[in-house]
Amino acid sequence: MSDIEARLTELTDRLQRVEDELAIIRLIASYGPLVDSGSAAEVGALWTEDGIYDVDELYMGSRADIVAMVNGESHQGLIHKGTAHFLGPAAVTVRGDTAVAVCESVLMVHHKERFVPARAGIHHWELTRTPDGWQTTRRTSRLLDGTPDGHALAHAGGRGEARPDSVTSTPQA
Amino acid sequence: MSDIEARLTELTDRLQRVEDELAIIRLIASYGPLVDSGSAAEVGALWTEDGIYDVDELYMGSRADIVAMVNGESHQGLIHKGTAHFLGPAAVTVRGDTAVAVCESVLMVHHKERFVPARAGIHHWELTRTPDGWQTTRRTSRLLDGTPDGHALAHAGGRGEARPDSVTSTPQA
Amino acid sequence: MSDIEARLTELTDRLQRVEDELAIIRLIASYGPLVDSGSAAEVGALWTEDGIYDVDELYMGSRADIVAMVNGESHQGLIHKGTAHFLGPAAVTVRGDTAVAVCESVLMVHHKERFVPARAGIHHWELTRTPDGWQTTRRTSRLLDGTPDGHALAHAGGRGEARPDSVTSTPQA
Repeated sequence: MSDIEARLTELTDRLQRVEDELAIIRLIASYGPLVDSGSAAEVGALWTEDGIYDVDELYMGSRADIVAMVNGESHQGLIHKGTAHFLGPAAVTVRGDTAVAVCESVLMVHHKERFVPARAGIHHWELTRTPDGWQTTRRTSRLLDGTPDGHALAHAGGRGEARPDSVTSTPQA
Repeated sequence: MSDIEARLTELTDRLQRVEDELAIIRLIASYGPLVDSGSAAEVGALWTEDGIYDVDELYMGSRADIVAMVNGESHQGLIHKGTAHFLGPAAVTVRGDTAVAVCESVLMVHHKERFVPARAGIHHWELTRTPDGWQTTRRTSRLLDGTPDGHALAHAGGRGEARPDSVTSTPQA
Repeated sequence: MSDIEARLTELTDRLQRVEDELAIIRLIASYGPLVDSGSAAEVGALWTEDGIYDVDELYMGSRADIVAMVNGESHQGLIHKGTAHFLGPAAVTVRGDTAVAVCESVLMVHHKERFVPARAGIHHWELTRTPDGWQTTRRTSRLLDGTPDGHALAHAGGRGEARPDSVTSTPQA
């Protein structure tokens, strides 16, 4: 009997890891549709309460900050014109109750009846298991414009590693 | 013994849900390569016989309509120039024998030795389990040009919900 | 007891197939971040020692060739400007110890403070299970410019089939 128990336990553990990976894939794949439709509460729910979203030009230090960004004048103006925050598939590395994921993106903006690629970036996600499922503790996004941060995040994310110390944040005063 | 039976049944159910999600991810990821190569029968097989493909400017009300679109002069002319119907990763929500998925896309068209982004859109998929595997019952695609349909589909899809009633179709006469 | 054994074995086989598919999804999703950050060893490790990477204008016949490409002047110059080798989600077909996958891509290049789509392509992957996990035995990449190779690879990949004989390589002398 103990052999069967052991096999059941092993299968359960492996299946859990698979479910974790798919949940994180789903979380990241939902970001674009949610942010492009201005679904502020749903975007916020992808982060923990004190989750960080650190973009080149904007540092958001909590879920409330992220919700405020989606509801803010700048983002609302952009999605009124039409945008696709087009994220690629995430490479996910799960380690127990935390995970790292990385993906690239192109931001398409609708402008004068055309769609223009406004930026291409890299996104390094740190996530944690919560009672409400997987949530983001820190997402760091940088342009892939040849500068060191983008390369460092892509390298670390591709290896399934935490955000490197060389990448620094600039929280607003 | 009944405990082992129960654990086996639970594992089987969870594994089935994982396999369902991966099958739908695979289905959607195959659409671009199939449609860009003019693989009409294979594209059609992604839908049920009476499946709907409802695009901004074109309503297809059956698999036969979809196959005809791929074989039609307009699509054939486009892929002869060269296209990438570049779809992003799908966020999939499985509920028993039906599912909803959402993804974004950029259509790249090869034109005068360059690749031009012709459109960026949102795709809301409704799918069903059939004896031949998962198939699409209705796919609704709209431009992300700031108009309400695109936002409504992205919002519903990101939440794993059916196509909203506010989005209407215009079947051809 | 034999019924329980049989169910455990079936679950284990199905779970293995799921893990295989996810491992290949992860491998392909990591290519962009790794190559855009110049992570030469990590890119090389996605292939077998004698793995092939056959691109329109460049044939690499081994892992060493691929590592040399990433470290080479041309690629280093490109990523110093800033690039996103933005690959879409892979449609993966696993058959025992080998697999075929297909995805599309857009290459974004940072140029004069803008991001320009330089090419759109199709990528047909042949992979094998190794003691170190899944690795690529041959990746064939072609432009989606309307020419037959791109269509043939997209068609075969979308059907989960090996690279067609009509697609030929041009190894360097």
